[in-house]
Amino acid sequence: MSEDKDIDIDLISSLLHKGESKLLEETLSSFHPVDVASLMNELPLDDIKEIFYLLSPKISSEIIMDLNEEAVEAILEDMESKRVSEIVDYLASDDAADLLGTLSKREANEVLELISAEDTKQIRDLMQFEEDTAGGIMQAEIVTVNVDARVHEAISMLRGIKDSMDDVHNIFVIDQDQRLVGVLPVRRLVLVEPDTPITEIMDHEFVSSHFAQDQEEVARIFKKYDLISLPVVDDDGRLLGRITVDDVVDVMEEEASEDIFKMIGAGADDIIPMSIMKSAKSRLPWLFASCVGGIVALKIIGGFENTLGQFVSLASFMPVILGMGGNVGTQSTTIIVRGLALGSVEPRMIWKLIFKEVRVGFMLGVFYSLLLAAAAQIIYPDTLHLSLIVGLSMCIAMTVAATMGTMMPILLHKMGADPAVATGPFVTTSIDIIGILIFFNIATFILM
Amino acid sequence: MSEDKDIDIDLISSLLHKGESKLLEETLSSFHPVDVASLMNELPLDDIKEIFYLLSPKISSEIIMDLNEEAVEAILEDMESKRVSEIVDYLASDDAADLLGTLSKREANEVLELISAEDTKQIRDLMQFEEDTAGGIMQAEIVTVNVDARVHEAISMLRGIKDSMDDVHNIFVIDQDQRLVGVLPVRRLVLVEPDTPITEIMDHEFVSSHFAQDQEEVARIFKKYDLISLPVVDDDGRLLGRITVDDVVDVMEEEASEDIFKMIGAGADDIIPMSIMKSAKSRLPWLFASCVGGIVALKIIGGFENTLGQFVSLASFMPVILGMGGNVGTQSTTIIVRGLALGSVEPRMIWKLIFKEVRVGFMLGVFYSLLLAAAAQIIYPDTLHLSLIVGLSMCIAMTVAATMGTMMPILLHKMGADPAVATGPFVTTSIDIIGILIFFNIATFILM
Repeated sequence: MSEDKDIDIDLISSLLHKGESKLLEETLSSFHPVDVASLMNELPLDDIKEIFYLLSPKISSEIIMDLNEEAVEAILEDMESKRVSEIVDYLASDDAADLLGTLSKREANEVLELISAEDTKQIRDLMQFEEDTAGGIMQAEIVTVNVDARVHEAISMLRGIKDSMDDVHNIFVIDQDQRLVGVLPVRRLVLVEPDTPITEIMDHEFVSSHFAQDQEEVARIFKKYDLISLPVVDDDGRLLGRITVDDVVDVMEEEASEDIFKMIGAGADDIIPMSIMKSAKSRLPWLFASCVGGIVALKIIGGFENTLGQFVSLASFMPVILGMGGNVGTQSTTIIVRGLALGSVEPRMIWKLIFKEVRVGFMLGVFYSLLLAAAAQIIYPDTLHLSLIVGLSMCIAMTVAATMGTMMPILLHKMGADPAVATGPFVTTSIDIIGILIFFNIATFILM
Repeated sequence: MSEDKDIDIDLISSLLHKGESKLLEETLSSFHPVDVASLMNELPLDDIKEIFYLLSPKISSEIIMDLNEEAVEAILEDMESKRVSEIVDYLASDDAADLLGTLSKREANEVLELISAEDTKQIRDLMQFEEDTAGGIMQAEIVTVNVDARVHEAISMLRGIKDSMDDVHNIFVIDQDQRLVGVLPVRRLVLVEPDTPITEIMDHEFVSSHFAQDQEEVARIFKKYDLISLPVVDDDGRLLGRITVDDVVDVMEEEASEDIFKMIGAGADDIIPMSIMKSAKSRLPWLFASCVGGIVALKIIGGFENTLGQFVSLASFMPVILGMGGNVGTQSTTIIVRGLALGSVEPRMIWKLIFKEVRVGFMLGVFYSLLLAAAAQIIYPDTLHLSLIVGLSMCIAMTVAATMGTMMPILLHKMGADPAVATGPFVTTSIDIIGILIFFNIATFILM
């Protein structure tokens, strides 16, 4: 199998609109479900609904978790509980809980009544955990074995559940109180004699996660210890479920994008599938701080109208000084936000880091202020004052910008807030205000 | 084992400086190697070197791949080839190739002469692949079985290599020409009778990667198909090695950070461990475009000195209009760059996306220009013209900014360039220039 096949979206559309449902279904089922889902995400909602109804519950279950939120909502809206329950039956418990979480309480209950009691309990339990925690991303499907079992017992237990074995890499070893006492990679079972006690080949030292742990922290644990699955326990060390590496890969991408989107003030969700209204709405509030800051800045400049009226050329230098400050500040902020997210910035390094960025900002400031002063001299050859003012302002503004860009996310982090949220617009706007104060005060001092 | 223990950096420093090397070694070996590495990354280079010499080759090998580049260079600089070869002996082939890649050709050869011929060949082969490709991140340690083998043969083969079994999840099935014909999850071996032919239980359909495939593409395949390992083949489908999910997790974080750092114009490497000079150097060139753009902007404003001289208050509105434009443009750019990297933006959606961003920019523009016009009216109650000018300029500037912010990364992508490289400073500077032209042309038209 080659790893990527492209589906012809026009072919699918034309089959759909010609009513060739049989042929359409055959065509779609020849592709990997992930590819079908990404194709469907590009179609209009009505087409998505129509195609989805053609698919069997099994194929539906393989596709639905990869559809975007709007599509899933549209599909579930009109679907009878019976059919939803058939799809839920094929889903892993974590996906089932997520899917039912998008329904109203009443609808979810209707669906849950139609599936087996055991599954219902698993799903209900999972639905109680917070979305972005270990409990929220774990699945309840785990393979456990008692601590006093032997290898042949574990093997015959595994043979009994063959069907659901495909992504089991570790068996969890529990004591009589359901407490997790060991982890046993399945492959070790083939390496030893059948009557070897499980305790002899299991790992007694293992990493586990508490159900309330943040998913970002969980991802960090996976990365640090190179795990492929992680058991989740409650306060008493009792086993609740497991998280597999593929879920964590999703979390990591989500968190990386989330940080970036938050930094630029665009909310935390993936913006691309959103409607125009939603997209504008999610970006609107974050620009507000920036706009208010801009209005403050314009009031401040108004206060220097006297200086400005006498030396109109000063105005020309505002954009370049504020722009360079903004760029340096954004660089510093981004570096720190990323470092905090990836764990390469630790609280004890803070002063060292701030001091470092101050010096980096100053070095960059010296370089570019000489450049700008030279440009000023060439453009306005009659005066040395202007070069002095813009050079000095640029250097101070860039140093202050680097310092502020470093301190802002660190301060937010210290206060327990998310260092990423809208730091982008906030930093550039603050730098605008401070840059203006620096520039016009220096200008007024030198010229007046 | 609790998943995280903090090492007391002051204790380590004091043990080191008191010369308590025995106690220091004991203390360090009680921690997870990953934790020791992240502690060492915070120490001065001389301390890192000194501590590193205290550790056994085995522990050194577990730590060295997690140290930052500067530390590794400093350590290897003074180390004799003999000791390097002892450490390399413990490394997986991909890590060994990466480590030797940091040495000069002569030094690497000296080390390679000291290790076993088989390992040498593996490592030399790996060193030939490009760093950021499937070949560059794969490892040569793979477990293969012949296509005509039976289950019991596979099991006894596995027992023979017990020691290196700990992260083997799949056995690769090859034909007599070394071509990959199937993939067999190890755990399936416990589910069937010993004389079952391998072909009966292996996956005949599997995903593989070509050695020259970009690592970002590899990461996308892992994510898409929820893999934990991926075989790498040559042009003829012959098996070369495998990539494991933990390597891909690193790639994903690396690529996410790389994109962000490139966008703000700060090079592609993690900036935090860099020295001040290096850090300033890597950021300096990207700010150049921004500075040149700023100088162009100041020339343009100079051309409107006549208008500006008569209506000095116009100058006050520049920062807010340019700032808001810059923020909206940065939002659009970031969303597209992220979408391209994650695969949620596809080339065929381009016009739809541009059109969408134009409308989002316009909606945000309308909202904020009303706000700014109102503010202008309050601050300068004597004139309606100013409100009209700034409102109109803001709305047009924000719409243009969103459009440009969307088109710039898409254009770069279409031209085969990296859409992330320095788009941040480039977009904000272009928006400054265009914003100024819009603003002063409207002002001149209305006022003069």
